Amino acid sequence: MNSRQIHGVRNVIASGRVLTDEADRYSYAYDGSFGTYLPDIVVQTNKVDEILDLMKFANEELIPVYPRGQSTSLSGGPLPVYGGIVLDMSVMNDVLEIDDQNLIAVVSPGVLTADIHKAAEQKGLFYPPDPSSSHVSTIGGNLAENSGGPRGLKYGVTKDYVIGLEVITPQGELIRTGGATVKNVTGYDLTKLIVGSEGTLGIITKAILRLIPKPAATKTAMAIFDSLVDAGTAISKILSSGILPSKLELMDQASMVAVENYEPCNLPIDAAAMILIELDGHPMAVEDELIKVRHLCDRVGAVEVRIPANPAEEVELWKARKLVSPAIVRIKPTKISEDATVPRSKIPEMCQRLQEIKQKYNLHLVVFGHAGDGNLHPNIVADKSDKEEMRRVEQAVSEIFEAAIALGGTLSGEHGIGLMKAPFMEMELGAIGVQMMKRIKQSWDPNNILNPGKIFPEPGQRLVLTE
Amino acid sequence: MNSRQIHGVRNVIASGRVLTDEADRYSYAYDGSFGTYLPDIVVQTNKVDEILDLMKFANEELIPVYPRGQSTSLSGGPLPVYGGIVLDMSVMNDVLEIDDQNLIAVVSPGVLTADIHKAAEQKGLFYPPDPSSSHVSTIGGNLAENSGGPRGLKYGVTKDYVIGLEVITPQGELIRTGGATVKNVTGYDLTKLIVGSEGTLGIITKAILRLIPKPAATKTAMAIFDSLVDAGTAISKILSSGILPSKLELMDQASMVAVENYEPCNLPIDAAAMILIELDGHPMAVEDELIKVRHLCDRVGAVEVRIPANPAEEVELWKARKLVSPAIVRIKPTKISEDATVPRSKIPEMCQRLQEIKQKYNLHLVVFGHAGDGNLHPNIVADKSDKEEMRRVEQAVSEIFEAAIALGGTLSGEHGIGLMKAPFMEMELGAIGVQMMKRIKQSWDPNNILNPGKIFPEPGQRLVLTE
Repeated sequence: MNSRQIHGVRNVIASGRVLTDEADRYSYAYDGSFGTYLPDIVVQTNKVDEILDLMKFANEELIPVYPRGQSTSLSGGPLPVYGGIVLDMSVMNDVLEIDDQNLIAVVSPGVLTADIHKAAEQKGLFYPPDPSSSHVSTIGGNLAENSGGPRGLKYGVTKDYVIGLEVITPQGELIRTGGATVKNVTGYDLTKLIVGSEGTLGIITKAILRLIPKPAATKTAMAIFDSLVDAGTAISKILSSGILPSKLELMDQASMVAVENYEPCNLPIDAAAMILIELDGHPMAVEDELIKVRHLCDRVGAVEVRIPANPAEEVELWKARKLVSPAIVRIKPTKISEDATVPRSKIPEMCQRLQEIKQKYNLHLVVFGHAGDGNLHPNIVADKSDKEEMRRVEQAVSEIFEAAIALGGTLSGEHGIGLMKAPFMEMELGAIGVQMMKRIKQSWDPNNILNPGKIFPEPGQRLVLTE
Repeated sequence: MNSRQIHGVRNVIASGRVLTDEADRYSYAYDGSFGTYLPDIVVQTNKVDEILDLMKFANEELIPVYPRGQSTSLSGGPLPVYGGIVLDMSVMNDVLEIDDQNLIAVVSPGVLTADIHKAAEQKGLFYPPDPSSSHVSTIGGNLAENSGGPRGLKYGVTKDYVIGLEVITPQGELIRTGGATVKNVTGYDLTKLIVGSEGTLGIITKAILRLIPKPAATKTAMAIFDSLVDAGTAISKILSSGILPSKLELMDQASMVAVENYEPCNLPIDAAAMILIELDGHPMAVEDELIKVRHLCDRVGAVEVRIPANPAEEVELWKARKLVSPAIVRIKPTKISEDATVPRSKIPEMCQRLQEIKQKYNLHLVVFGHAGDGNLHPNIVADKSDKEEMRRVEQAVSEIFEAAIALGGTLSGEHGIGLMKAPFMEMELGAIGVQMMKRIKQSWDPNNILNPGKIFPEPGQRLVLTE
């Protein structure tokens, strides 16, 4: 951007801040994925009118605009790959209203997801989507990426709880989609199109979320297995028994060892795998289902089923699960976190393929994740300064995607396509499938101003992890 | 269409049937709403390849194509308003597979919704969406309109259970959206865009539906009230008590009287209103919640709370609710069935407004519907040969829409926009909101071949019920 353009942005952003110092800009150059891209400027404003004017100006001047929340994205969603403007939406955080008559929340995009959880629970209500980053991620980022989390199995993902949006279009117009009613079929469902569009179709400035009554009780069980296949069988048996757990998580031996080395949690590190099961609902139902789950796990050959004796022990178990990500980064500094997802019956097969890929490329790969809905998290840890290793990572990642798609799955269950998975889009969707998505993007953003370089591959683009 | 064009269609539809007799075409000229439009020809085929070729031919020749299931639509969705081709998808009904390992169903569009319910339940599974027409409607029609039903309150609508589609684009290309995994964020959510697009964006030739374990128990209660406002208060109290019923239906006095005159069901016709509550889930939880619901209703002044003594009595009560629609048509022959929806806290106010509109225009208006999710069904019965009365109906319908939107609601909760509500789109969405939807339509269907005349108003179009 030239100085006239920067001056133009300053004119438009009268109440907010425009950051141009390199040190400031550098803090906006990365996210939770891979790669560093310096924006020309950073804009902070909580005024809708100023963003409307900014988008009009950016369209006239053909300047890319990259909206961003707290940038916990694991797929490169907010990275300013073509420079231009980063729009820091985390400062638009003034509205967090819980309406317990209508079972809805009205929120600004910069509000932290965990704060919505807390505010809802204070009124006996429940906002189910719980991405692992919820304590640091903004709801705006969750909306852009359609974040998932462990509760997806029973409760669905972010999109399933969004009923209305206020959105600034790429050309700087304000629209409202959906509304405060849980049923709405007035025209095309722009709400669910925009949620998960990774900031390429509009800038969300307000959202109306559906809430449900908070389940009265929760109970947890841990089942330990000698083989990954037995763990997979237990998951299948539970899901076809008529019980729908609120969470059903898998950790393989490598993830348990990593956690124990990071912070001892009394995990069964001699076992091949363990599953963590959370049941929620009416206290009597939960009690009864817990007994059934124990029997089902015993019957498929669990080495042991542990039921926490008190809430503190329960918290401890779930903490162990949350520690996997920080723990594995201690092994090697560069973490490539994937979320290829398969139909749930294919989980044992996918686990097998992942072990083969791990051996073939001699990489440090751990497997954990939301096994109940088929959404595994194969994570590779490596060292990005080791170019030879990173090239093996590139090949392994490609093979993980191929395996997931061959098993009837998808590139991404909850992290989004962003930058890293764009080269693989046609593998899953075919050329026409990608083209039909592109037509929507072009019809809404003819100048390709809003978050350009994401989702859609450039001609010849391929995965490159060696900078 | 000229004879060369009809010949061209016959060439393309080698295995299927092309109907041209007026008698045949006439059976395809109406749906469950209002108005009669004769297509030029009717095509029946269960071959995807033939439909692909048909769409390519229709694009070359600029012939409108109107896909159609069983045409129970209440908004004119399948009406061939510009003539051309009606594509009868009810003959594509060969696939109905329940995969109990992955908790999914794979279905052809012509399969009846009730047959999916039955097939899932045989395997202990549950497909929740239950539009009242489910015994005669096809899943393809439900997908096109994003059908709702009483269970929307707890379980959501059709869209919430669709995870993958096979679709023929308006220009005759085949795409697959989503897949067999419950989590999928690979690119834009075309699945949820196409579901509810009323057949204007693509022809669905296969769908993958998400199933859940069948709830082990259900219980019903009927609560009778002296005033609509008390009934509304009871609904609010139940929903904020932490209980989420599977159904929560309202019938006003006029609907009860109509049903009793049609087929005696022992309804409390002296009361102002009644609500029907269904609870489902774990047997112990349901038993406990039933006691709580009874107490809540007593406390807000219910005249009586009836609990059916046995399953037969329970079935009887729900039959009474299903009889409202056939019953009221006996009063006068022309039924205008609306589904304007408001935030649930506004139900008492909406009921009040509906009574005022009924008196102002001196019409036979009954109110019933899915009160738990704000989705009321104000139905007006009239005689379409009485032009003066029909003009009063037109005005009343407009005022119903205005009232719903003024209360923060929507034109349509579950019936779709179709033909009848198109003139009111801008009232809810604004000019830009409608334009952003139109951009998508134009980018996918540049020749406006697929179901033209729906959703988007023609310039100056207004509601006309006098033929």
